[in-house]
Amino acid sequence: MMMIWFVFQTKFNMTLDHRSRIFQNLNGAIVIQTGLHASYPPVGLVDPVRPASVSLSTVPHGSTVRIRTISSNLALCPTDEVVLKFERAKVRVRNVAYDTLPVIIHGNGPTKLQLNYLGNYVPTAWTYEQGCGTCDDDLLLFNDVPDEELPLVHVAVFIEHPTPFMEEFLERLTTLNYPKTRIRLFIHNNVVYHERHIQQFWERHRALFPDTVMVGPEEDLQEGKARTMAIEACQKNPECDYYFSIDSDVGLTNPDTLTILMEENKPVIAPMLSRHGKLWSNFWGALSPEGFYSRSEDYIEIVQGKRIGLWNVPYITQVYLIKGSVLRSKLSQVSLFVDEEMDPDMVFCRSIRDQGIFMFVSNRYEFGRLVASSNFNTSRLHPDMWQIFDNPVDWREKYIHQNYSKIFEKGTKVVEQPCPDVYWFPAFSDKMCDQLVETMEDHGQWSGGSHKDERLAGGYENVPTVDIHMNQIDFEKEWLKFLKDYIAPVTEKLYPGYYPKAHSIMNFVVRYRPDEQPSLRPHHDSSTFTINIALNRKGVDYQGGGCRFLRYDCKVESPRKGWSFMHPGRLTHYHEGLPTTKGTRYIMVSFVDP
Amino acid sequence: MMMIWFVFQTKFNMTLDHRSRIFQNLNGAIVIQTGLHASYPPVGLVDPVRPASVSLSTVPHGSTVRIRTISSNLALCPTDEVVLKFERAKVRVRNVAYDTLPVIIHGNGPTKLQLNYLGNYVPTAWTYEQGCGTCDDDLLLFNDVPDEELPLVHVAVFIEHPTPFMEEFLERLTTLNYPKTRIRLFIHNNVVYHERHIQQFWERHRALFPDTVMVGPEEDLQEGKARTMAIEACQKNPECDYYFSIDSDVGLTNPDTLTILMEENKPVIAPMLSRHGKLWSNFWGALSPEGFYSRSEDYIEIVQGKRIGLWNVPYITQVYLIKGSVLRSKLSQVSLFVDEEMDPDMVFCRSIRDQGIFMFVSNRYEFGRLVASSNFNTSRLHPDMWQIFDNPVDWREKYIHQNYSKIFEKGTKVVEQPCPDVYWFPAFSDKMCDQLVETMEDHGQWSGGSHKDERLAGGYENVPTVDIHMNQIDFEKEWLKFLKDYIAPVTEKLYPGYYPKAHSIMNFVVRYRPDEQPSLRPHHDSSTFTINIALNRKGVDYQGGGCRFLRYDCKVESPRKGWSFMHPGRLTHYHEGLPTTKGTRYIMVSFVDP
Repeated sequence: MMMIWFVFQTKFNMTLDHRSRIFQNLNGAIVIQTGLHASYPPVGLVDPVRPASVSLSTVPHGSTVRIRTISSNLALCPTDEVVLKFERAKVRVRNVAYDTLPVIIHGNGPTKLQLNYLGNYVPTAWTYEQGCGTCDDDLLLFNDVPDEELPLVHVAVFIEHPTPFMEEFLERLTTLNYPKTRIRLFIHNNVVYHERHIQQFWERHRALFPDTVMVGPEEDLQEGKARTMAIEACQKNPECDYYFSIDSDVGLTNPDTLTILMEENKPVIAPMLSRHGKLWSNFWGALSPEGFYSRSEDYIEIVQGKRIGLWNVPYITQVYLIKGSVLRSKLSQVSLFVDEEMDPDMVFCRSIRDQGIFMFVSNRYEFGRLVASSNFNTSRLHPDMWQIFDNPVDWREKYIHQNYSKIFEKGTKVVEQPCPDVYWFPAFSDKMCDQLVETMEDHGQWSGGSHKDERLAGGYENVPTVDIHMNQIDFEKEWLKFLKDYIAPVTEKLYPGYYPKAHSIMNFVVRYRPDEQPSLRPHHDSSTFTINIALNRKGVDYQGGGCRFLRYDCKVESPRKGWSFMHPGRLTHYHEGLPTTKGTRYIMVSFVDP
Repeated sequence: MMMIWFVFQTKFNMTLDHRSRIFQNLNGAIVIQTGLHASYPPVGLVDPVRPASVSLSTVPHGSTVRIRTISSNLALCPTDEVVLKFERAKVRVRNVAYDTLPVIIHGNGPTKLQLNYLGNYVPTAWTYEQGCGTCDDDLLLFNDVPDEELPLVHVAVFIEHPTPFMEEFLERLTTLNYPKTRIRLFIHNNVVYHERHIQQFWERHRALFPDTVMVGPEEDLQEGKARTMAIEACQKNPECDYYFSIDSDVGLTNPDTLTILMEENKPVIAPMLSRHGKLWSNFWGALSPEGFYSRSEDYIEIVQGKRIGLWNVPYITQVYLIKGSVLRSKLSQVSLFVDEEMDPDMVFCRSIRDQGIFMFVSNRYEFGRLVASSNFNTSRLHPDMWQIFDNPVDWREKYIHQNYSKIFEKGTKVVEQPCPDVYWFPAFSDKMCDQLVETMEDHGQWSGGSHKDERLAGGYENVPTVDIHMNQIDFEKEWLKFLKDYIAPVTEKLYPGYYPKAHSIMNFVVRYRPDEQPSLRPHHDSSTFTINIALNRKGVDYQGGGCRFLRYDCKVESPRKGWSFMHPGRLTHYHEGLPTTKGTRYIMVSFVDP
């Protein structure tokens, strides 16, 4: 070989491109990583675009299923020698070892993924100036296609572990902006707790999805086998144009997701989703040598939507669309999910990669978010109520009044002032009201309304009510978070200059009944301000009720379900609870900043 | 003797009245007390009118001068055998040893005082039904006497120790309702600290009292000798009709006292005075065998004005009127005040008693009160300010606004409401304002108005002012007492249902100046409510100033000296101090119930 090269060199006046002036062989670069070149530059110098502000703690750690190592900070990467060079409106590749700008890049074997990564940018696939240059290249358009001619999609739903906001998840299947006649639904539910939600869903919507296949927990079907079963249904059905897989922790709030993904015209494509405010997403930008998660230099910017486009990546999970034709050709002989040593998602991505099929993730649209399910305690009556920390957006959509945000709009009329310095605004959704009352009645340990109260530090309550405190249902942390996130901003708007600590030790649901405790004598609260939220409906659930502020001789006699009063607790707002004359009245009371 | 009695008994058929059926010899009763009668009834039974609710702790204890023992509870008294029996509209004497009602009472030697005591009641001198039956018996009347023919009175003033409210004491000499031309004033001041007050008094009023004799501390004249000197001036002046002695701790608020006492037409008479709300008075109802204080059964009722009359008592002090004629006759050869082993007041009363002259004390009118001087710290600039505990009535008269009490009158207009829930009412007198400002300026350690504040627990003040805290002038206890006694009742009236703890740790005088700190940015206070008292005059002492409540867009631009704002501290009443444009503005601020 050396002899032949020598002949070429002398005879044709040729020279070896050993400094990668024209050719860059990625696989050659790997040799460097093994240590042959002692002069290899340190890691810090070859990774110029790594955001300095991102610390290791924001890296999505390994899930409970397996441990993923983040090797890029710890060892030399195969491709550290080759980096992107962003020029004006185009991107080149730079060999940092020789400081050259090769024009032909070649990757084979294990470096194919690096080649895919470079291909996301070079030469104009994505630039800072123009964003994605190739995203619209092969679009299919379904705008003018009549419903009945739209592609047939096998939609497969996987409920493999208890997941918060399941009702909302299922409900979103029905609001997908796609003709239900062109959908074939498959549901694998492996969680007994969720059978009630499937049942409810089915009772309400069975007409929409007549040919649904359901596999319940009683079948004891393993996840990998269930995924195989669902995908084979598409594979075996020549009319199946697309296979759309969606896991229960995927909150697909964009109803056009299915159409958008189909229009991108890729063999395998996922909508990019992440947990709200977190870096945890449904794709990986790179693989570690062991095949686990590795942080690509563009990962954070893609998750945060700072680089927008269509990204060829080595791993996607939880939700994706596959062309039926690909399933029936390149993937027809492949075991896509089942491997004795690996989880189904890992098996799936490796299989796809091994067949030379590109997987894309799109962040060109806002698709939704991932739901976190690790702290989901299904022993509670309404466990979603406790999800304010882990899934704040879902919690807000479910439990906060739909007009709450209008409080902060300019010139809003949604806040009323029925008495001096007493404000009245929408706070809870009907669902929050109902679930809170149901939780209290389910708990059932109502205080007797006597002065003796062992739940209090002093053991004495001056103005006793029949009530249950938030700490009795283990909801105090969550309640304080609600105060901080939803009440404090209202306070700051309505009482400018006051910044609530939003601390409270007295948070309770009061029950008024004609034959129990119908009313409450005039009193002050041990609070800077008090909120008082009506939990049910005057005229329907009870008669009477309301609140009177004695110093202003001002009453509010028609509380509205879900609406909150906010009023100073001491000094000026001496107040009483007016008698409930019929039925049962519930209010949620909180003494804020005692 | 026995033989003679035997002859009488048999010859005239007479019997010995050994059971006191007719005669009661008080001196004989003393023999019983020495223990000859073993069957003597226990103390509890012979003292039926002792009020059960009076405990030993309310007994006026010995002064700092000498120790007085209260023997009546500890041993049998000479006269326990003889008690008053109150019948319908008359009073008899009962011998409890024999259960008899003797009609002739005889006292001699040491029992004379007991005879005097019985004489205050028996037979109709004082009864429950008709009160004093003899008080108007010998009245002189001066109604129609022209000023120039009124008796000449030598008024002798003794300032023997530092005494609170001295300016007010001296001022009251000028407001005595008696022609000054018929007064000859003598002042013995033995206290250097009070020379300034005498001086002031003299500068202002010398024209009223041209022939005044003043003996200052530089003379180093002993109290007894000074009293002798004053009384001898009357004795030696044949025109001196009365000698009126008054000590500096006597607050004679009734300007008619002198005339009232003269009209009673007694040789020696004192107006009854006591410390406000206390049993400490200027007379004793009885003497112990050693000649010191003893609690008579009627003492408390006389001091509390439940028995009203003219009382023949063994001891008076601090203020009394003596007829000149008595001084020049029975008392002409007596050393009235000086004895090597006794205090002058003790010597005086013993001398009067020894001459068989009755001393009376009258509680027929309200004459005034005694001032307590034991906690009077003259090292302070304005020590009277600290007298709120010991002399609350004098303190109130001096330091509380004259219209303060109108706050509590029905339909009062003295409380204004310049902004929502902001009240404005008179609080301090001009004197309080001035003395507080002077005390602060004298102290001089004004804070720099910076955020760093070592006086605070956290060392950080969010909204700093140029100020001095009450604890820096050692006035915190007194300030809290002011809050409790004068502010809390206003709060309870204006914010019904709120009962202030009246606790406060932030109490300070603020100084605003154009070239120092002219204003204060919007802020909340760490209080349930705040009081803010203007200490000087807008338009005179400063220009600008005032307070704005931003949420109500409401200003108070013309503070009134001595008037206080009261407003909620947090949440609703975000407020700012408006710029002082000229001069210096002072306010007193207190954050109540933090």
